[in-house]
Amino acid sequence: MVNRQIRLAARPVGYPNEGDLRLVETPAPEPREGQVLVKTLWLSLDPYMRGRMNTMSIGDVMPGGTVGRIVTSKRSNLAEGDIVVGSYGWQEYAVSDGRDVREIDPKLAPASTALGLLGMPGMTAYFGLLEIGHPKPGDTVVVSAASGAVGQVVGQIARIMDCRVVGIAGSEAKIRYIVDELGFDAGINYKTQDVMSALPSACPDGVDVYFDNVGGAVADAVLAHLASRARVVICGQISQYNLKKPELGPRILGAFLMHQARAEGFTSAQFANHYDEGRRRLARWLNEGKLKYREDVVRGLENAPRAFIGLFKGENFGKLVVKVADE
Amino acid sequence: MVNRQIRLAARPVGYPNEGDLRLVETPAPEPREGQVLVKTLWLSLDPYMRGRMNTMSIGDVMPGGTVGRIVTSKRSNLAEGDIVVGSYGWQEYAVSDGRDVREIDPKLAPASTALGLLGMPGMTAYFGLLEIGHPKPGDTVVVSAASGAVGQVVGQIARIMDCRVVGIAGSEAKIRYIVDELGFDAGINYKTQDVMSALPSACPDGVDVYFDNVGGAVADAVLAHLASRARVVICGQISQYNLKKPELGPRILGAFLMHQARAEGFTSAQFANHYDEGRRRLARWLNEGKLKYREDVVRGLENAPRAFIGLFKGENFGKLVVKVADE
Repeated sequence: MVNRQIRLAARPVGYPNEGDLRLVETPAPEPREGQVLVKTLWLSLDPYMRGRMNTMSIGDVMPGGTVGRIVTSKRSNLAEGDIVVGSYGWQEYAVSDGRDVREIDPKLAPASTALGLLGMPGMTAYFGLLEIGHPKPGDTVVVSAASGAVGQVVGQIARIMDCRVVGIAGSEAKIRYIVDELGFDAGINYKTQDVMSALPSACPDGVDVYFDNVGGAVADAVLAHLASRARVVICGQISQYNLKKPELGPRILGAFLMHQARAEGFTSAQFANHYDEGRRRLARWLNEGKLKYREDVVRGLENAPRAFIGLFKGENFGKLVVKVADE
Repeated sequence: MVNRQIRLAARPVGYPNEGDLRLVETPAPEPREGQVLVKTLWLSLDPYMRGRMNTMSIGDVMPGGTVGRIVTSKRSNLAEGDIVVGSYGWQEYAVSDGRDVREIDPKLAPASTALGLLGMPGMTAYFGLLEIGHPKPGDTVVVSAASGAVGQVVGQIARIMDCRVVGIAGSEAKIRYIVDELGFDAGINYKTQDVMSALPSACPDGVDVYFDNVGGAVADAVLAHLASRARVVICGQISQYNLKKPELGPRILGAFLMHQARAEGFTSAQFANHYDEGRRRLARWLNEGKLKYREDVVRGLENAPRAFIGLFKGENFGKLVVKVADE
């Protein structure tokens, strides 16, 4: 049985390109006693992977969260046919000793949501907004990359919390989606509008919570409009990940001093002990229709590299996942 | 009776100069029924006053905290001879209806400490370090402007809390003072050393708490050495107050993301309801000899402008106060 894998071929300089990744075919691994063989159904593509490309070894399989089906089980607690979520990376087959997989019930929510709304991006949105951002009813919440895997969830939770929500995104279709479909109060298209001058009318009372997925000039503009005691949730800095050398920007500590504001970086792993709570609540909102969830599905592992590169250009619309095999 | 005052004569561009301030002589005010006449003994000079010069009206008396003696009382609850702390600005006499003064007992601590250790700078140090910085025993705490009104208190409280304390200051005498007299673990002279390259040996485990009084390049260097879950207490940005136009600097949100670190701006007024606690504890440490307190005393109101300008060049050594009249 052939296992197609995508491996790091060269360390990217600036934006990754397709030559930095290589599709290789190897024999699928054989599970030993106590192991299972998992067939990948869904692969998650996420911005954090760009950072890994700077530190992982050349030749290694690209890392990533996956949903798979157990095709061979030599473990008593996992059966053939079980659907599991794990971190098997950009490949079609992997073996596991079962410690790092979690079984999911695909009848509760589509299996791919285990990589998005009910997975790392959803946990990032849920705990980042609630535990770092502390939104209060009536607060103005601004989120960048607002139609992305994390941003769309952040904005909808903020609406559920009775906040005024303004999303920043990079196309008219994305802006229409977050306002018309997701119920955001306003949207700013950073590719066609000047964010700095669009913010005062979108946020007449200033920004109480800024959930930052992008950094750079968009963050500069939002930080220039903070309300008193604002909270800035630093979740991602995607505009900075592919710079060949660090860029300069306006100094921002003065704004935090002036507004007695706070900024905090975090990763979802800080809240791992509370994931059950987050998943339960997000699944309930999804099933009650209070929360929508959009995926951008790419078919075939061989198309993962191009889709991944597009992530840094805002080409995806919703949570980017690769459908590696049919369920 | 003549009242000498120092008034704003012109809006400063960049660093203030002596021409921006003017000494005027007016008749001392007469207290009406219910008022007191206060004679200024001590005037506090603080960096925040530079910001006020941008917004106050030309011709107004410069604002500032003062310690004074009541020379005429037409209020039943205040007697002639009482020593009070208030905010009467850069002048020799002022009237008050008593609402905005607090009587102090000069036998507990020298009266001038009501403008420093037991006043706004002390409250800023105490609550900023403890309530925003949350130092834990063994933490490495870095403080800039380390021999100044706030910095010297921050560093000594951090020592009392069993932290490793590193101070950044601008002369060898100041470094010797904080290390030899105040017990800091190390000092970095930012005028003769490269802070970026001096920090790793001064803070081998990274910086857990950075108490920032200065901003600019010194802050850049410290933010490049944060430990995981570091807390940055944004208290002042004195390096930025006199810039003719804002300067650029390295982007810092990425460092907060990488280290899951936090930054927060504050003013002491946030903690006004707890000042009694802060004053009591600081006074006890002072009287027990656990905490030292250094003032830089300038004699005569007419010398306040030059001393104030020197504050932005690091010319003061300790809390800068003007002795306006003998007690």
